[in-house]
Amino acid sequence: MIQEKIDQAIAILREKDIDLWLTFVRETSSNPDPVLDLILGTHCTWVSAIILTATGKKIALVGSLDVQNILDHASYDVIGYRDSIRDELLKILEQEDPQTIAINYSTNDVMADGLSHGLYVMLMEYLDETPFANRLQSSEAIVAALRGRKSHAEVQLIQAAIKETLEIFDRVTETVSVGLSERQVAEIILTAMRERGLEPAWDPDHCPAIFTGPDTAGAHAGPTERTIQAGHIMNIDFGVRKDDYVSDLQRTWYFLRPDETVAPPEVQRGFEVIRDAIRHAADALKPGVEGWMIDAVARDYIVGQGYDEYPHALGHQVGRSAHDGSALLCPRWDRYKNLPYLPVEVGQVYTLEPRLTVKGYGIATIEEIVRVTESGCEFLSKPQQELILIKSA
Amino acid sequence: MIQEKIDQAIAILREKDIDLWLTFVRETSSNPDPVLDLILGTHCTWVSAIILTATGKKIALVGSLDVQNILDHASYDVIGYRDSIRDELLKILEQEDPQTIAINYSTNDVMADGLSHGLYVMLMEYLDETPFANRLQSSEAIVAALRGRKSHAEVQLIQAAIKETLEIFDRVTETVSVGLSERQVAEIILTAMRERGLEPAWDPDHCPAIFTGPDTAGAHAGPTERTIQAGHIMNIDFGVRKDDYVSDLQRTWYFLRPDETVAPPEVQRGFEVIRDAIRHAADALKPGVEGWMIDAVARDYIVGQGYDEYPHALGHQVGRSAHDGSALLCPRWDRYKNLPYLPVEVGQVYTLEPRLTVKGYGIATIEEIVRVTESGCEFLSKPQQELILIKSA
Repeated sequence: MIQEKIDQAIAILREKDIDLWLTFVRETSSNPDPVLDLILGTHCTWVSAIILTATGKKIALVGSLDVQNILDHASYDVIGYRDSIRDELLKILEQEDPQTIAINYSTNDVMADGLSHGLYVMLMEYLDETPFANRLQSSEAIVAALRGRKSHAEVQLIQAAIKETLEIFDRVTETVSVGLSERQVAEIILTAMRERGLEPAWDPDHCPAIFTGPDTAGAHAGPTERTIQAGHIMNIDFGVRKDDYVSDLQRTWYFLRPDETVAPPEVQRGFEVIRDAIRHAADALKPGVEGWMIDAVARDYIVGQGYDEYPHALGHQVGRSAHDGSALLCPRWDRYKNLPYLPVEVGQVYTLEPRLTVKGYGIATIEEIVRVTESGCEFLSKPQQELILIKSA
Repeated sequence: MIQEKIDQAIAILREKDIDLWLTFVRETSSNPDPVLDLILGTHCTWVSAIILTATGKKIALVGSLDVQNILDHASYDVIGYRDSIRDELLKILEQEDPQTIAINYSTNDVMADGLSHGLYVMLMEYLDETPFANRLQSSEAIVAALRGRKSHAEVQLIQAAIKETLEIFDRVTETVSVGLSERQVAEIILTAMRERGLEPAWDPDHCPAIFTGPDTAGAHAGPTERTIQAGHIMNIDFGVRKDDYVSDLQRTWYFLRPDETVAPPEVQRGFEVIRDAIRHAADALKPGVEGWMIDAVARDYIVGQGYDEYPHALGHQVGRSAHDGSALLCPRWDRYKNLPYLPVEVGQVYTLEPRLTVKGYGIATIEEIVRVTESGCEFLSKPQQELILIKSA
């Protein structure tokens, strides 16, 4: 998989007309650069330079004691140094004489922003009085393409993680009941996850995130001692990591009151608005549109139905990470920088996850995962079409 | 523990005469800042500002959906924003009017270098045309003190991790034999680790690192299929994470040939030189000396005995991380920047880990952990005094 992504990166350098991509890192177990998962697959101890060029060179300049470990993980020409990386780094740059050098900083995209400011300062000291200092640019276009365009093998891994997650949701449906606390529901999920040898897709503090009833906490909080009651909407946000790729999905349940056989009309309607917002967004999603346009389809639909707009993006990419970076299906808010304006590309994998509040009942939300095709998109998750109803005991 | 470190941080701000410490982060599950483990204990999703002041203010300015999660983890005044962090951040700075603002960038210390260059650029845009842009400085003095000065509770947690590790080494001694591969020895260790519910202290690819015999790989490589033979020196570098604190220890074994009852003189001598180098270094370690002086004690002793010098530092700090940052017992090589010159302080916890090669046999190395006291240092690990001899079957 690493080799596939390295080859892809070199092709992207040619496409984007960038001569050399320099990933400059140090003690990555304490301060990782997100691109290393894609192009190296292991950690570096001392200041290290991972270099790919449009001419196909693959050079890892690392501390001498890291040489063997790098050789074990990826097919680079590995050069070890003891005292300082400076001289070898300048030698490589002089030999290659790149006219454009991409480095990993970005105000827009965290996934292309792995270069620490201290290392940037160090690099500029090294490049002082060389022509290279003026040839630097952000690697964000490289990272967006490399991370976004999933290979067939990558999509299969994401699908495997989705399958596990949906099966775990089925387990919830079979075992959940009024009276359980959010924490107890979380334990059902985590037990199933561990039985399957899987890990949570994001921070275990709120993976799963579980919200039952009205007055629920913010969307990034973990499960609480709040207990499920009849008349509650419950929604769960959960994903697993399997073979280094993740899922990120949400489903909505309703707990019938003793005298109910269907959900109250306002609950049913809230659920259907979310379900249909996802369908409308998926219908519009295709290569070339900008992310904000897709967000607007779902957002405008929900607001048009009389609900408040959701306070977050419609969807993000999924891959090695639950928030896989770059192009985002989000509104044009300042905090998203240029991400809403990046065009959708074939091979990207997105979540679609609008939400709305049904007053007095809870939060209706569904999160699906879709893959962008040549002409539109396909669902990688089997979409939730019906509100899951749980009878009172 | 987080509250204890926040209070300690505020006291350090006063000591170092810094008015405000700004930790500026984004999507920390993808791009963490190492200080968050100390002062927050959870992740932030959007661009966030964690602010501590010498006057005792504790403010977390975070995306609206993160508010509840932050409140669940640490006692900050939490402010949520939706569109942009800019206005609230400037308002806080104007209210506090700090004359000195520390931010997390450092050419010297990875642990104080969590600010990405992209976020630095964003911050400078926000501070443009304010007086604050010229009041920024590196937080490295704060981070070095905060991370280095372990509380009694922290030392106890490190000791607990050490105890587990030494017991696992005893298991190795009881079960290892000629004919096992490095990978098989690793499996003995990992099985014991898992039985105890522990995690590896660093990258599982080379935790444990196991080297048997001559012609071993570099020190950061993982265990191989190489098998132990009589006449091999084997050394293991291993540590565990227990309750968020880690150990990092090394021990050396020798596999007797059928006709041997003691190790060959050159093996025994190599071991003793390492053991005594540690003793000499520990005798010299005390508050106020600079790290390079302690490294030089061990390095010069080993070279004086006719061996090559080790190609790394004598020791690093240990705590929440196996390489706990800042002051280092290392030579004055360029790659270590200013770290060799930082003075040793009371409460710091260091490894001592020299090595040497015994030609034809393997690598002799011991790693102990010591805590700096008012007048010297104390061993937190029971030092290896004797080469561990394993008889042929």
